[in-house]
Amino acid sequence: MAIIYRINMSDLSVRAEQPDGKYQRLGGRGLTSTLVADEVPAACHPLSEANKLVFAPGILTGTGAPCAGRLSAGAKSPLTGTIKESNSGGMAALALAALGINALVIEGQPGASTWYRLVVSERGVEIQEVDDLAGLGNYATVARQHERFGDKVACISIGQAGEMRCAAASIAVTDMERRPTRHCGRGGLGAVMGSKGVKVIVVDPTGGKRVEPADRQAFSQAVREFAAALDEHPLTGETLPTYGTNALANVINQAGAYPTRNFSQGQFEGVEAISGERQHDVIVERDGVIAHACHRGCTIKCSRIYMDQHGAYLTKGPEYETVWAHGANCGIDDLDAIAEMDRLDDDLGLDTIETGATIAVAMEAGVLPFGDATGAIDLLEQVGQGTPLGRLVASGADVLGKAYGVRRIPTVKGQAMPAYDPRAIKGIGVTYATTPQGADHTAGYTIAPNVLGVGGHVDPLSPEGQVALSRNLQVSTAAIDAAGECLFIAFAVLDDSRAFDGLCNMIGACQGRPFTSEDLMGLGKSILNVELDFNRRAGFTEADDRLPDFFSTEQLPPHNATFDVPDEQLDTVFTFDE
Amino acid sequence: MAIIYRINMSDLSVRAEQPDGKYQRLGGRGLTSTLVADEVPAACHPLSEANKLVFAPGILTGTGAPCAGRLSAGAKSPLTGTIKESNSGGMAALALAALGINALVIEGQPGASTWYRLVVSERGVEIQEVDDLAGLGNYATVARQHERFGDKVACISIGQAGEMRCAAASIAVTDMERRPTRHCGRGGLGAVMGSKGVKVIVVDPTGGKRVEPADRQAFSQAVREFAAALDEHPLTGETLPTYGTNALANVINQAGAYPTRNFSQGQFEGVEAISGERQHDVIVERDGVIAHACHRGCTIKCSRIYMDQHGAYLTKGPEYETVWAHGANCGIDDLDAIAEMDRLDDDLGLDTIETGATIAVAMEAGVLPFGDATGAIDLLEQVGQGTPLGRLVASGADVLGKAYGVRRIPTVKGQAMPAYDPRAIKGIGVTYATTPQGADHTAGYTIAPNVLGVGGHVDPLSPEGQVALSRNLQVSTAAIDAAGECLFIAFAVLDDSRAFDGLCNMIGACQGRPFTSEDLMGLGKSILNVELDFNRRAGFTEADDRLPDFFSTEQLPPHNATFDVPDEQLDTVFTFDE
Repeated sequence: MAIIYRINMSDLSVRAEQPDGKYQRLGGRGLTSTLVADEVPAACHPLSEANKLVFAPGILTGTGAPCAGRLSAGAKSPLTGTIKESNSGGMAALALAALGINALVIEGQPGASTWYRLVVSERGVEIQEVDDLAGLGNYATVARQHERFGDKVACISIGQAGEMRCAAASIAVTDMERRPTRHCGRGGLGAVMGSKGVKVIVVDPTGGKRVEPADRQAFSQAVREFAAALDEHPLTGETLPTYGTNALANVINQAGAYPTRNFSQGQFEGVEAISGERQHDVIVERDGVIAHACHRGCTIKCSRIYMDQHGAYLTKGPEYETVWAHGANCGIDDLDAIAEMDRLDDDLGLDTIETGATIAVAMEAGVLPFGDATGAIDLLEQVGQGTPLGRLVASGADVLGKAYGVRRIPTVKGQAMPAYDPRAIKGIGVTYATTPQGADHTAGYTIAPNVLGVGGHVDPLSPEGQVALSRNLQVSTAAIDAAGECLFIAFAVLDDSRAFDGLCNMIGACQGRPFTSEDLMGLGKSILNVELDFNRRAGFTEADDRLPDFFSTEQLPPHNATFDVPDEQLDTVFTFDE
Repeated sequence: MAIIYRINMSDLSVRAEQPDGKYQRLGGRGLTSTLVADEVPAACHPLSEANKLVFAPGILTGTGAPCAGRLSAGAKSPLTGTIKESNSGGMAALALAALGINALVIEGQPGASTWYRLVVSERGVEIQEVDDLAGLGNYATVARQHERFGDKVACISIGQAGEMRCAAASIAVTDMERRPTRHCGRGGLGAVMGSKGVKVIVVDPTGGKRVEPADRQAFSQAVREFAAALDEHPLTGETLPTYGTNALANVINQAGAYPTRNFSQGQFEGVEAISGERQHDVIVERDGVIAHACHRGCTIKCSRIYMDQHGAYLTKGPEYETVWAHGANCGIDDLDAIAEMDRLDDDLGLDTIETGATIAVAMEAGVLPFGDATGAIDLLEQVGQGTPLGRLVASGADVLGKAYGVRRIPTVKGQAMPAYDPRAIKGIGVTYATTPQGADHTAGYTIAPNVLGVGGHVDPLSPEGQVALSRNLQVSTAAIDAAGECLFIAFAVLDDSRAFDGLCNMIGACQGRPFTSEDLMGLGKSILNVELDFNRRAGFTEADDRLPDFFSTEQLPPHNATFDVPDEQLDTVFTFDE
């Protein structure tokens, strides 16, 4: 049983389809990108009725494969104008998979400004009016759903930013504690959900069942070797559970690539106070939780639960990118203030990376000084109030920067760069510049070989070898995203053949066919080609595959490096067939 | 004697150059676009030190040719990201030409936030600090210059919008009464001037002289035939002097192409109250001035001086586009309120078209209701105060629309459409879509043959024949802009061979060489090719040569027309050589 539900918000109808041959073996990013590329006019306005918002669990989601709980969301992005896939942890993908659902495709647009809930269960999809939820943050929104539908449901929701259709709006997904802490953050897909009039999707897995692999025995064998590799790799087995993603703060700062005060320095003097090590101690002291899984079946457990100074729940994590975006990049070294902003971002439904980058651009513009944590929190509160300045903050770095006449805006294709300065880690600069998704570290995470010594070593400061590195990682990442696997499995996949083979064998056993490493890379290439073709039709060219000019003209201390991978090399990233 | 002054705002130095062969025969848009294309990196940020702001009088400016007082400003546009030429009437171009200056090229960027004045005279260019002018509107700014430098100087200045580097900022040019009423309005070039730290340019023509044609006798003969054609054409000889540009209001409304309430209808029920005929009567009743010239040597005299209800000077015009932008497009039928907004736009230094379009998008977003003149005036006052909402208004329709999640934004390449709905006048839709300048009626004014019966007739509602029409007009317009001629000569040029031949012969006599109609069209094509090449390097493709999707999907009353010129035809507009 495999179902694609088409939910038409223009006439409030629902249609169930059996996916045809082409879609049958796709999942996650492979399915969202293919559906969007096939059905959404590349020239449409991202907030128009012609855009479609697609949710899809991965190929392995719900099978019992470790760490395979990612939910992919896809659409034409209001932030970048490109095709977009943004994925999240949390429990929703597992619930969809248990119901045998390959994808939810939300189409059209309601005429009146009414808010709707979609209730997805074994009985199908029901569309319900929920105007009483209008204006609520994600926390209150999902709490009301759990009151009504019980503890087993998973929620996919938007906060005020998505309701306002602002381009930094995320889509929240509930975690194992029923909190809206996991997000399809990037690309403003929350604004697309808002434009469809959908406030929340409640997925009730009751009556669902585990996805049965075609070859159970081969699958179990593959899971065992895959899980062993994850357990035994120092990053996935030890560093990530102990210190979480923010273990990177000291590492990247040490590498001189920790973007500080809107990408003007590569080291932050306040890093110690916001490091993963410090965060670990604060969490433990306050009886928070480390080594926490964001969804059932995660064996890495990089998530954590952060308590406030009184020991009460404040927020998850916060993750490395969030701590950086609201911390070093804003000149803020107060972990509690950063955690408060993380909570606000989750509640308002904002991408933490884009939002932190936008606040830093506001600081560069003189709206508030660098280091002003109180002022930064006030900006987020203005998002909730819907003030003009709040809307600017929720619209991303490019829009706020344009309104304030700022010329140093660290975006590619309209999306803000994450927490690695591309002048000091040049491989990630290649990924930022060329990925069809706009600046995105997860699209081809060269930090592994550039800095972490995972998957070999490529000198981060040299322009040599970065293009091949980014290409290979972009290809393999697209396949991992299609599988529904968490990107962090890549550390083991790069270093340990049991993980690579295990991944291929799990997919093969699931689909009942041989699935080799070439098949995996072929899957990744085909997804990228679909995305690149959409972007070409939307008007993107090689001229868009560039970093902002200041990365070539301004030297970054302490290495005083500029980004010097030649344009001609950037243009060869996707020459798969040569 | 021909001089190009290069003013480097990074080190506050000035260099005088003799233009070399390539630049010698260029003027106006031909010179600004060629210089920008040759010297500005297409990928640079428009507000960066790498951008250059070029001012150039036309080939015929200062020769005594009628209506040849246009000043071209060129740069990479912060509004569109394309190359940009925006031209203005007023007295500055004549003053520059009298001093033998072919161009001012403002380069670099000051390190500190200091404001400067450039004083251009027969002694060269002097750079002076003028921090006391910071925050002043254009009216106060130029009044202080006239107090200090006397009545003969012409001023080129920016208001608060340009100081804030907002993307709808214009560059003001003083008229014959020393008021800052003429503007290089489009494309946000005021923001580029602001990014260079230049608040005002004072041009003192003292000691200058009339530009001497190479063949005085032939020139005088050509002027006579050209002037006669202008005098005798019903539009340039009668309608424009009597009713001004706003004579169009009733005509375009009658044609069902008068964009009303953010391009949702083609006729405005309140048109009568804001028509050119009504405006004529109000001006005459209040002892204002009709048939007024915006610069010496204009024989058309479409400008007017508008008095307030007490008979005191309020503003110039207002022009057709301004009356429409703040009137019908915002559902406002109050001529005095519109004139007040025109005054505010001129003082703040805002493009009236972009600003009116932006206010209409704010109305569509629900920030204020359609028809709310008081609210619209308040929005403009917020620009002067630099509030977040004011900055959004000053940043153009795209940026405000994005912050408010609006999907019906009538822009092409980020620039708002002027006062002709492209569904009901399809030729202008072709121009909007394809001109290298972003949506711009002046780039190829098909209204003449589509509606006015000038230069033949092409059915405005049919997709047939519009591409050829737009192509020919875009080519001839580029040449007219290079000559420094007012676009309104085109009515006579299209209908009367004496005007066409006169224009060619004036240029030929000026430059001392034969100059045929083929040469004129060749000049236009070469300018367009230079601009198109820049845009291609900046990443623009055929996918950018499209109207927003709603013009194809929403029918415009009363004709219930959509824009249906096929994409493939749009892509043939610039196939000059086939």
